[in-house]
Amino acid sequence: MPAKLVALYKQPEDPEAFEQRYFEGHAPLVERIPGIQKNVITRFGRTLAGHGFYMMAEMYFADKDALKAALRSPEMAATGEDIQQFAGHLMTLMMAEEE
Amino acid sequence: MPAKLVALYKQPEDPEAFEQRYFEGHAPLVERIPGIQKNVITRFGRTLAGHGFYMMAEMYFADKDALKAALRSPEMAATGEDIQQFAGHLMTLMMAEEE
Repeated sequence: MPAKLVALYKQPEDPEAFEQRYFEGHAPLVERIPGIQKNVITRFGRTLAGHGFYMMAEMYFADKDALKAALRSPEMAATGEDIQQFAGHLMTLMMAEEE
Repeated sequence: MPAKLVALYKQPEDPEAFEQRYFEGHAPLVERIPGIQKNVITRFGRTLAGHGFYMMAEMYFADKDALKAALRSPEMAATGEDIQQFAGHLMTLMMAEEE
């Protein structure tokens, strides 16, 4: 079963600045995480129920063990430090498995 | 660009009852929505930041027009009425596009 790290981001105050910082600064760090297979980006539109989000990043790994190993890597630590600098207050981050 | 309807569910009071009701009662209704291609289920594990969720359902459509047509269908209305009966208070529902 594919394992993933799922990051949900609330609406940023300045979407353009967020986008630039995420895709130019952060995404290249995500790509360097050991064992990462892909980082799938979802952009949310209209919220039909509840309190919606702005964007979701799904970082895929082969399985739960690969994800756990990645979480202990220095590359993941650097990625986590980077996101805290500009989007820590917007982010919900969860371990997950896709059926 | 694939369009999807993304449903995030908070932790249910009774996970077993939620699972049974979702997969036996609700999922078959989702399958009958016109234009739906697949309903991908993600189960969340440990929350590393923010307030996490229990489960996510991603309902895929060919494009935004197909999703909009589905939202106007009687099958979608029936699906929406059904989810309200047992999980409306747990759900965040958003239109989305995947890159």
